[in-house]
Amino acid sequence: MPSSDSSQPPRSSDELSIADLQRHIHQMYYEKDVIRGVDGTFMWLMEEVGELASALRGDDQENLAEEFADVIAWLATIANVAGVDLNAALSAKYGHGCPGCKRLVCECPSSEKP
Amino acid sequence: MPSSDSSQPPRSSDELSIADLQRHIHQMYYEKDVIRGVDGTFMWLMEEVGELASALRGDDQENLAEEFADVIAWLATIANVAGVDLNAALSAKYGHGCPGCKRLVCECPSSEKP
Repeated sequence: MPSSDSSQPPRSSDELSIADLQRHIHQMYYEKDVIRGVDGTFMWLMEEVGELASALRGDDQENLAEEFADVIAWLATIANVAGVDLNAALSAKYGHGCPGCKRLVCECPSSEKP
Repeated sequence: MPSSDSSQPPRSSDELSIADLQRHIHQMYYEKDVIRGVDGTFMWLMEEVGELASALRGDDQENLAEEFADVIAWLATIANVAGVDLNAALSAKYGHGCPGCKRLVCECPSSEKP
C-alpha cells in the first residue's frame, strides 16, 4: 500500500493494537480468568454491558469511556480463555471492507446485517 | 521505553490498532449508524452478544472468532455514534496495569472487579 494512501494515516506511537490489548489482559488476568472459566467470565461481561447501557443513557462522557473500556477488556478476557486471537478475527472479518457488500463505505440495505 | 523490554514485543505490521478499527468502522458504517442512533445500534449489539454466547457453547472455533469480531465491531459503531475514542479509553484504563491494584499481574481479590 503506498504511503500516500490517505485512507491509511500513519499509526501514532500511542495507538494500542488489539493484539497488545489482548496480551496485556492476558498478562494481568489470565491466571484468574482460566480458573473462572468462560461461563463465569461471561457473567462479568454481562454486568459490564449493563453498566455500558446505563452510561449511554447518562451524560458522564468520562464514565462512558470507562464502560466501553471495561466491556472490551472483558471480551478480551473471554477470548483469552476461549483461545481466540482477536486481531486475526477482526482483520479477517473487517480488515477488507464491509463483510456484506465488500465496499469501504457500506452499501448493504439498512435492514441487513453488515 | 527501551526496545529490549521483553514485555513489549515489536508490533507486527499486520496488527490492527484499536484506533484503525474504529476508523474503519466509521468509514464503512457511520452514515447509517448515526441515523440509527445509539438505541437502535445497541439492539444490534445485543443480538451479536447472543450469537457470541451461542458460539461459546458450541465447538466451531471459526464461527466463534467471527462472533467476537462482530461484537467488537458493533461496540466500535456505538462508540462512533456516542463520540467515544476507544484507543484513549482503553489506554487510560488498562494501559498501565490493572486499574484495581495497579500491578502488571493482577493481585486484586478474586471477588472484586479489576
